[in-house]
Amino acid sequence: MKKPEELNITRHRGNITRSKREALNQHKGAVLWFTGLSGSGKSTLAHALEDKLYEMGCRTMVLDGDNVRHGLCGDLGFSDEDRKENIRRISEVANLFMEAGMIILTAFISPFLSDREKAKELIGEEDFFEIYCDCPLETCEDRDVKGLYKKAKQGEIKNFTGISSPYEPPVNPHLTLKSGARPLQECVDELISFLQAKEIIR
Amino acid sequence: MKKPEELNITRHRGNITRSKREALNQHKGAVLWFTGLSGSGKSTLAHALEDKLYEMGCRTMVLDGDNVRHGLCGDLGFSDEDRKENIRRISEVANLFMEAGMIILTAFISPFLSDREKAKELIGEEDFFEIYCDCPLETCEDRDVKGLYKKAKQGEIKNFTGISSPYEPPVNPHLTLKSGARPLQECVDELISFLQAKEIIR
Repeated sequence: MKKPEELNITRHRGNITRSKREALNQHKGAVLWFTGLSGSGKSTLAHALEDKLYEMGCRTMVLDGDNVRHGLCGDLGFSDEDRKENIRRISEVANLFMEAGMIILTAFISPFLSDREKAKELIGEEDFFEIYCDCPLETCEDRDVKGLYKKAKQGEIKNFTGISSPYEPPVNPHLTLKSGARPLQECVDELISFLQAKEIIR
Repeated sequence: MKKPEELNITRHRGNITRSKREALNQHKGAVLWFTGLSGSGKSTLAHALEDKLYEMGCRTMVLDGDNVRHGLCGDLGFSDEDRKENIRRISEVANLFMEAGMIILTAFISPFLSDREKAKELIGEEDFFEIYCDCPLETCEDRDVKGLYKKAKQGEIKNFTGISSPYEPPVNPHLTLKSGARPLQECVDELISFLQAKEIIR
């Protein structure tokens, strides 16, 4: 005969599984991993897609430099090692959000094939979707929204992707968006169709 | 006259604010920070509360050793410095989930006042609720669900809270649950009443 106190220690975890959360949300969890040069439109696209998904009643979260680089990864710089750790932590957080049944949009340059490969492994191949924002370097440089290319060319920023550090384009991305040449809304529509085709949303 | 390409670079972030997400979820975001000795019932309570909140249609996430210590914080040990960094990362992740309009239940020993204070600062005083699982050390030792106390006493685990490392109880917790002496369901009911009183849920 168990004492009442012992009832407290019953293992009581994991009842609310990912699939239960997805049932509540009425869509599946997934990670859309946007990759591309600085200025290629990753964050802009992710946020525009989020606007549309919100209208449709979906639970989403954008992870980008704005909410990660100053917080969770505020202790990291831009050395190869730190970039690697940056991507690892982002992958882990994206994974947690996905387990919560949400659609995660990550918007980081993530220039190295090997890091994106690791993100895919960690998140799981069936839930990880690589979205390539394919925008010519010249266009990104012309935009130079944050003035970073100018600084990089003057040597004020070191290890800047496309200028002083390589960008390795995806070999076989799930979706390529010519984000330098097409109107934003067209790209968003294509992403919505993609999510529907993958049966992540209805 | 802007070229169509230029339309792509419009800053398009932040439309989906926390309050919009909360409106969709029909409850507020918040962080319930469970603290207490190993075996005091933190995870059990958090998961039992999550079961109830799920029934009520709330969006929640439990962060505990199971999904954080092996993942995001898998590179950290149990030195004072590593514990500090562990709590910092958990706070940042809890904060992201809260921004997504969710109710986050963190279940970590988090033995040091200063670390919990930092978590509160990072998350924001109005959204951070310290829940003290107040269970006598003897009860925790008797339970010893994972056999950790035995190992700690034999010196196999170093820096074990309550045995070879201090636990600093909350000075002014938002809620104290005598989790060693009361049935689990009573504690859950009290937590639900607490969330209603704080107008986090209806």
